[in-house]
Amino acid sequence: MNPFILDPILRRALEEDIGTGDVTTMATIEPGTQAGAELVAKEDFVLAGIDVARRVFQLLSAETAFEKLISDGQTAKRGDVIAWIKGDAATLLQGERVALNLLQRMCGVATLTSTFVQEIAGTRAVVVDTRKTTPGLRVLEKYAVRMGGGGNHRMALYDAVLIKENHVAAAGGITAAVSRARQRVPHTQKIEVEVRNQDEVAEALAAGADILLLDNMSLTELTAAVELVGDQAITEASGGVNLETVREIAETGVQLISVGALTHSCRAVDISMLFT
Amino acid sequence: MNPFILDPILRRALEEDIGTGDVTTMATIEPGTQAGAELVAKEDFVLAGIDVARRVFQLLSAETAFEKLISDGQTAKRGDVIAWIKGDAATLLQGERVALNLLQRMCGVATLTSTFVQEIAGTRAVVVDTRKTTPGLRVLEKYAVRMGGGGNHRMALYDAVLIKENHVAAAGGITAAVSRARQRVPHTQKIEVEVRNQDEVAEALAAGADILLLDNMSLTELTAAVELVGDQAITEASGGVNLETVREIAETGVQLISVGALTHSCRAVDISMLFT
Amino acid sequence: MNPFILDPILRRALEEDIGTGDVTTMATIEPGTQAGAELVAKEDFVLAGIDVARRVFQLLSAETAFEKLISDGQTAKRGDVIAWIKGDAATLLQGERVALNLLQRMCGVATLTSTFVQEIAGTRAVVVDTRKTTPGLRVLEKYAVRMGGGGNHRMALYDAVLIKENHVAAAGGITAAVSRARQRVPHTQKIEVEVRNQDEVAEALAAGADILLLDNMSLTELTAAVELVGDQAITEASGGVNLETVREIAETGVQLISVGALTHSCRAVDISMLFT
Amino acid sequence: MNPFILDPILRRALEEDIGTGDVTTMATIEPGTQAGAELVAKEDFVLAGIDVARRVFQLLSAETAFEKLISDGQTAKRGDVIAWIKGDAATLLQGERVALNLLQRMCGVATLTSTFVQEIAGTRAVVVDTRKTTPGLRVLEKYAVRMGGGGNHRMALYDAVLIKENHVAAAGGITAAVSRARQRVPHTQKIEVEVRNQDEVAEALAAGADILLLDNMSLTELTAAVELVGDQAITEASGGVNLETVREIAETGVQLISVGALTHSCRAVDISMLFT
Amino acid sequence: MNPFILDPILRRALEEDIGTGDVTTMATIEPGTQAGAELVAKEDFVLAGIDVARRVFQLLSAETAFEKLISDGQTAKRGDVIAWIKGDAATLLQGERVALNLLQRMCGVATLTSTFVQEIAGTRAVVVDTRKTTPGLRVLEKYAVRMGGGGNHRMALYDAVLIKENHVAAAGGITAAVSRARQRVPHTQKIEVEVRNQDEVAEALAAGADILLLDNMSLTELTAAVELVGDQAITEASGGVNLETVREIAETGVQLISVGALTHSCRAVDISMLFT
Amino acid sequence: MNPFILDPILRRALEEDIGTGDVTTMATIEPGTQAGAELVAKEDFVLAGIDVARRVFQLLSAETAFEKLISDGQTAKRGDVIAWIKGDAATLLQGERVALNLLQRMCGVATLTSTFVQEIAGTRAVVVDTRKTTPGLRVLEKYAVRMGGGGNHRMALYDAVLIKENHVAAAGGITAAVSRARQRVPHTQKIEVEVRNQDEVAEALAAGADILLLDNMSLTELTAAVELVGDQAITEASGGVNLETVREIAETGVQLISVGALTHSCRAVDISMLFT
Repeated sequence: MNPFILDPILRRALEEDIGTGDVTTMATIEPGTQAGAELVAKEDFVLAGIDVARRVFQLLSAETAFEKLISDGQTAKRGDVIAWIKGDAATLLQGERVALNLLQRMCGVATLTSTFVQEIAGTRAVVVDTRKTTPGLRVLEKYAVRMGGGGNHRMALYDAVLIKENHVAAAGGITAAVSRARQRVPHTQKIEVEVRNQDEVAEALAAGADILLLDNMSLTELTAAVELVGDQAITEASGGVNLETVREIAETGVQLISVGALTHSCRAVDISMLFT
Repeated sequence: MNPFILDPILRRALEEDIGTGDVTTMATIEPGTQAGAELVAKEDFVLAGIDVARRVFQLLSAETAFEKLISDGQTAKRGDVIAWIKGDAATLLQGERVALNLLQRMCGVATLTSTFVQEIAGTRAVVVDTRKTTPGLRVLEKYAVRMGGGGNHRMALYDAVLIKENHVAAAGGITAAVSRARQRVPHTQKIEVEVRNQDEVAEALAAGADILLLDNMSLTELTAAVELVGDQAITEASGGVNLETVREIAETGVQLISVGALTHSCRAVDISMLFT
Repeated sequence: MNPFILDPILRRALEEDIGTGDVTTMATIEPGTQAGAELVAKEDFVLAGIDVARRVFQLLSAETAFEKLISDGQTAKRGDVIAWIKGDAATLLQGERVALNLLQRMCGVATLTSTFVQEIAGTRAVVVDTRKTTPGLRVLEKYAVRMGGGGNHRMALYDAVLIKENHVAAAGGITAAVSRARQRVPHTQKIEVEVRNQDEVAEALAAGADILLLDNMSLTELTAAVELVGDQAITEASGGVNLETVREIAETGVQLISVGALTHSCRAVDISMLFT
Repeated sequence: MNPFILDPILRRALEEDIGTGDVTTMATIEPGTQAGAELVAKEDFVLAGIDVARRVFQLLSAETAFEKLISDGQTAKRGDVIAWIKGDAATLLQGERVALNLLQRMCGVATLTSTFVQEIAGTRAVVVDTRKTTPGLRVLEKYAVRMGGGGNHRMALYDAVLIKENHVAAAGGITAAVSRARQRVPHTQKIEVEVRNQDEVAEALAAGADILLLDNMSLTELTAAVELVGDQAITEASGGVNLETVREIAETGVQLISVGALTHSCRAVDISMLFT
Repeated sequence: MNPFILDPILRRALEEDIGTGDVTTMATIEPGTQAGAELVAKEDFVLAGIDVARRVFQLLSAETAFEKLISDGQTAKRGDVIAWIKGDAATLLQGERVALNLLQRMCGVATLTSTFVQEIAGTRAVVVDTRKTTPGLRVLEKYAVRMGGGGNHRMALYDAVLIKENHVAAAGGITAAVSRARQRVPHTQKIEVEVRNQDEVAEALAAGADILLLDNMSLTELTAAVELVGDQAITEASGGVNLETVREIAETGVQLISVGALTHSCRAVDISMLFT
Repeated sequence: MNPFILDPILRRALEEDIGTGDVTTMATIEPGTQAGAELVAKEDFVLAGIDVARRVFQLLSAETAFEKLISDGQTAKRGDVIAWIKGDAATLLQGERVALNLLQRMCGVATLTSTFVQEIAGTRAVVVDTRKTTPGLRVLEKYAVRMGGGGNHRMALYDAVLIKENHVAAAGGITAAVSRARQRVPHTQKIEVEVRNQDEVAEALAAGADILLLDNMSLTELTAAVELVGDQAITEASGGVNLETVREIAETGVQLISVGALTHSCRAVDISMLFT
């Protein structure tokens, strides 16, 4: 990941944790003391964010050596050493928590994504994320989703049109809303419309929507909608998606399944930083 | 919560989501359109962050009216309306996701904390958080822990001494490490020492540690350590704490139980913003 | 325009010009002196940025009254009063140059855009901007293009795929490049491919490109390409576009014509701020 | 130019264009791919900003090699290679537009300045800029004016006194305004007064003005004013200056001629970045 | 003082002191508690910075009432109430230290300046400051010097030329250095030259220096230099200036006396904030 | 000191002084000119901040060589060379003032602290600082206090509880205030209570205060309070502390003596940067 994008996030995280100084390290570690450490997987997971961890230590001291043994997107097994770190002891101690907080979360997102992806293996559906991400960390979490085998939905409010119920109501109908958007937004952006029944599906198709968000539909409705749409637009299912329901949803033939839980309700995986 | 502390966090979150502009709203909503909405609990949870949600909308437009019906620390029941919002429709649509992303996470932390707290009711132990928080959101998550009935551990590396294994090794023993810290850090900060067995407990006590972190001890060891310490220091248990084990740990008589999962592995609660 | 997006730009502009203080005003104007002024058009132009000018003065002092008499997108005639301003004399004097520098530039962009748009009246083509904007002012200049009757191309590198010659070379061909992009970018983003001849047009269409950038083609080539593409993709012409050539290009039937000069080579229109 | 001054401008420009990432490059270019490119003049112009372009690429990656073949202030001829660049392909692709947007604008300013300077060759007049610069880029544009052979007027409101009509009115006359300024501003700053006729010239001289801004005077008035002033102050002409009028104005013997168009209405020169 | 300039300084000061929150106030003061306080002079001094103090409290809460009873530049006598403050108790407690730290320092600067000014009453000399100010607070300290009756030297390295020994050596002599500066810097900036003996005085005058910095000269040398210079330039004495020597220096007829101690070695005056 | 903490302070200081550029150096020094300089003590003092000075020059140019001959905490004698600097002449000239402004102030703090510390040699008391520091420079000044042999009080409002008279009044008494604080703040923070007489001492002890701030007590009262407290809490004296009174205060047996003057009223020591 580009340091240009990454560094402001990491600097803020380090400032939050270090502030006016790590009093414990300043009191107990002689300046110049060298140390080595390894990042060890305490459970199985899909790795995401190893270069983020590396960058945390290198921002604190450019001299820190960091060798990754596993790459993002690969699976780490319990007991695997993920990376070796060597450098100033104070740097290692001061970067440890920030590096782990980010890495454990990113691996958590990738691992949960991967579980959903495996669940729908063999269907044509792609699991995608949402805007239900951690404020300030969206770019990292969306990267982790990709590492887990998922796809990304729009990044934010600025890079694609998603017309929901309230926009439709304000614009005076789906047709009017799509038409306005087509005139006012760049031709490079697709237009997605949230639809709740077959009439709305038909109207959105006629209005020229590029993507249909089939929100909270039953499996029967989903199947019908997917059939009705055919090749005329991309279909996306959302609402009520979990590991129990995702395969049935995928089997309706829908192309995309968006899952908020990937980023708002994953748990951190367990990784230790052991000094050697 | 003080806007002075809160606003930079919220501004960054809004910039992340709005960027160069909400293309959907710009295309479909006439400037000046007014709207009303309510925040509705879709499940039971402990509320935390309602003023954070309010501030999100008011940063976008100072004219937004926001009336909270439930206060932080109280329990919201499924179906409860948590707050009414009224103002510019674009403001409501553009603030919705950031407000919910923060509020749902904070309620998640408060609710999980509350579950741990209830689990140990009747013991003298206090559930406290750790530094395993979401980078950039620590002050919000620690507030949420308090709203859930928990206590806060140190904020960061700068406001208390916590001497861990590596510091001990570098300083040449617990006694040396504590002695150095006592000389070099403000007299206003307490000194906590991580100990792994009864010998270390004894050495840390003799060295004058204010708090002992009893890390990954068995229940038997914990009980012995608590007894040995008596009133000479504060005792804190950590490691392997979950909802199955927390009560047994609390019953050893330990004073504090720190739980990383409160902030690193909680799930967001379900809250909807319904337009009226 | 949303103050949330606008204010950082304006604050930087004001800091650049005011720095440690306006020494002339501090020396000659008594604190508290009130003044009025009007913004007057010194030539004909299309207005864009009137609310930007307003915001400049209101950031310096929230009490400044500013009444616009003409709205963005309308034509101001030489001699027209565009707006009345009333408030603290120091505020008016200190905001004048920043407000005019921005307003004159934005009107310049809108006016030049409008000239291009009029030149192709009656064709189906839309004049759009490029990324050749003034660093730091892109969002304002793209807004001005819309006010002049043009359309916007992608905002930046992050919100749409535009595969140019170098990307094609690196990926090993148009087909491979489009295929990779389809897999790796959000389904919400369109994929545009730069093509230089009919073979590339055909390959890009077959690869599923959403938009074809017909770069530096002769009128004959353009016409053939537009015919070949038909409804299968959006066509965009670029290169060698100026007021002499734009109508011929539009008459080839191409849908979009992108013009870098709209933002990189327009001149500021003449507007005076007269104290009353 | 000092990176210390330059970098914040460049960082903002890069953030504006790259944002959350260059989706095209991420999708099509393998990480680690190396590339070379050259900056080529597509027309004749005076070069300004070559080190700005270099810095853009080096901010993205410190390893980028950049060799300039022509220096700022020299003339580039159509077809000349201005610089060689070698480095990470993604860096070259992501920095290209920002580097060119700045470089083309700066060269445009230098070239237009140079045209004015040549027009008045042989007179004692110096062409100088104004505060009518692009918000956020003033320091770059004023540098470009110097590279084109012009001089700089004050940087901003903080570094010199320029008493205009409104300050005179508020202070109760030219004499009072100059007197106040002399008392209140640092002795290191000169005091310039805008004058519109010979009476004001005489009053400003008597009041001890260091520089007289002869605003919108006819050639006859200018000549008379310059004669009246003699060596008692510096004379500056402004208003109605263009390539047709500048020589006549210079021949009145005025010392400085300020030209807003240098920075507010120049066009970008044509420079290409060709990959090799 | 303009909030636009002031606020960033105050925000940083408040962030430095409040950080993640005032734990004492949060623990002991009920939200919403109102309080009143007065700022009381505990010794005699010249007031400077009262609006800075006001702004500190109003940044924390816009509702805070603040009535000043004495204005900047006036003398406060021991026991005088300088201002009344009324508002949220937490705001008063959290702003107290930052407001006093700034106000006491600014009054210290003004008072020391005033002492120097009184010492040279009746001479034509003006006491001016230097660049030996507190990093980050220069604009406040220079304001305080004016409130104490002194004048300001240049603000910083950017707004006037001051050619010192090293610049002279690098340029190859005073004449060459002045000549270069005259060609390269804006005509609005004066050129000051540091001189150490009568030969250098003569050379600097001949070179056209606007101001001569007579550095570390004896009284005899100073007198001779002032006489030699006459009306041809402004004379400034520096070096070895203190309250014992300043009058003798002033009596040489020198126009300016610059005193680093005004800002680098003043003591804070004693002001209390008493809650009522 | 960690560049991570230091750099933002130094960048702001450099921006304040250099702004849009050092006009004198740009006009008189050829780019690329090399120079050497030494920092020389012009009086005796305790050194603090030598690495801060180093970092100033290295931020301007990473190639600057800087060799320190004396370390922080050591005494520099008049005439001692403290450090050698070698590098780009412009860098040395542009960094000189900021480096000296910080270094001279920090040495001033260390030296004044050292004077107090020597005055109480042989007693058990430790001289500590307060929050009466220079806004924006607290972390540097507190470091300087340590280099002078003193200790640090709390860093700011966020890292320790200090219950003063107003908090006591608002909470309804010392007992209530301490009790609330104990419940609401992290167990890692100590609680200090300001007490004015023996009754309050007794109440604070009973309430479990960790530290007693014995404010403005007479020597007799202090002695009695210290005796009453014994080992039950840490005792701190404040108010009316100066070089005449500090020894008597120390001899009462009090453990800490806090002195605001260390940071609010020290004078800068005299250090020259001589070019070689």
